[in-house]
Amino acid sequence: MPDLRDLYTTLGHEFADEALLRQALTHRSFSSRNNERLEFLGDAVLGFHVARELYTRFPDAAEGELSRMRASLVNGEQLAGLAERLSLGQWLQLGSGELKSGGRRRGSILADAFEAIIGAIYLDAGIEAASRFIDVQYEELFAQEQLGVVRKDPKTSLQEYLQARALELPEYEVIAVEGQAHDQLFRVRCHVRDKHNEYEALAEGRSRKKAEQSAASMMLEKLGQVDG
Amino acid sequence: MPDLRDLYTTLGHEFADEALLRQALTHRSFSSRNNERLEFLGDAVLGFHVARELYTRFPDAAEGELSRMRASLVNGEQLAGLAERLSLGQWLQLGSGELKSGGRRRGSILADAFEAIIGAIYLDAGIEAASRFIDVQYEELFAQEQLGVVRKDPKTSLQEYLQARALELPEYEVIAVEGQAHDQLFRVRCHVRDKHNEYEALAEGRSRKKAEQSAASMMLEKLGQVDG
Repeated sequence: MPDLRDLYTTLGHEFADEALLRQALTHRSFSSRNNERLEFLGDAVLGFHVARELYTRFPDAAEGELSRMRASLVNGEQLAGLAERLSLGQWLQLGSGELKSGGRRRGSILADAFEAIIGAIYLDAGIEAASRFIDVQYEELFAQEQLGVVRKDPKTSLQEYLQARALELPEYEVIAVEGQAHDQLFRVRCHVRDKHNEYEALAEGRSRKKAEQSAASMMLEKLGQVDG
Repeated sequence: MPDLRDLYTTLGHEFADEALLRQALTHRSFSSRNNERLEFLGDAVLGFHVARELYTRFPDAAEGELSRMRASLVNGEQLAGLAERLSLGQWLQLGSGELKSGGRRRGSILADAFEAIIGAIYLDAGIEAASRFIDVQYEELFAQEQLGVVRKDPKTSLQEYLQARALELPEYEVIAVEGQAHDQLFRVRCHVRDKHNEYEALAEGRSRKKAEQSAASMMLEKLGQVDG
């Protein structure tokens, strides 16, 4: 492994206990003394700090909006992206099988290492040091403009998307209800048409509303791919 | 509402800002200025503190064990139980509909209020004050003996349960695999027999292992009911 002090600079944190950083970079395929426990801890530190940041930055956001914003910030894809920006892959200690199969670029391995580093900084220097690291990494993502997009619920977003393109509003239809009174599962179809095509998204949820939101979310993804 | 100062004693925290506690006790059916945002924050504070406690108390526990222990400590049922012990129900501000339908005793409302109080204490006095509150509430639950039970994975627990009773080991069988290569769903049957009866549990999961663990967990519940 190259000199870890170069990585201190990238991370913006000088480790008092270098062993913590080494462990955060060690995948389970390399050693039984790996980063899984640190990842568990880092995940909780990240969840806490992101929650308090959102709570403070968006004083008028409802709980549902805060939850959606948090989900958009701490999902595996986002974490892997942040890990790539830090070039964490080159620092990872992987077993030979993972090395050969491209483990240094695997999203889940990178995301786990990113969380493990947060856990390591927390153990090394406390919650405020870990929070500072998270703030720097998330600086752009925390910006209000970016989060505004995910703040709205999917049905509202879909409606606005279609209205902006002068298209008809989506239709939602419950196609099945399964289970008993207190444990029902709703299957919902969302239907959208533009000048040339029709689009359909199927989703399920524990309430009609949840199923519709989920179908709207899938529809937005579909349309995004069409647009892109 | 009775004098909140009585509740300070129960909670073991003297609020500098009483409005925070009032908000934590206000259900959305009563006012738009309710406890939902505080619940979002409290949930994250609780998740963080429970994670760091488990990390410290169980230095040799693997990540999977830590996750299982955390899930057993912060689920809705557990939170509702802690809320009941504090008699939070009598302090809640509920809309008339919720009042009539027994909202003061509803588990989900109690659990949410418990998390909201954690959020309120955090805002009132910081992370260490919130952590002290959580430590007092969770004192018995944090005890190692209690957590030992959930620490092991369900397949191991089931095997030990059967061995202790001199019964045959369980049989697991994959009865269906659905979906495509990267999005498969495994359906698994777990089968157990004692001198008089046969038991079957069906479960599904994104991997064979997960489906088996889930089936073992259901089997343990079934057998527990038989024993009880």
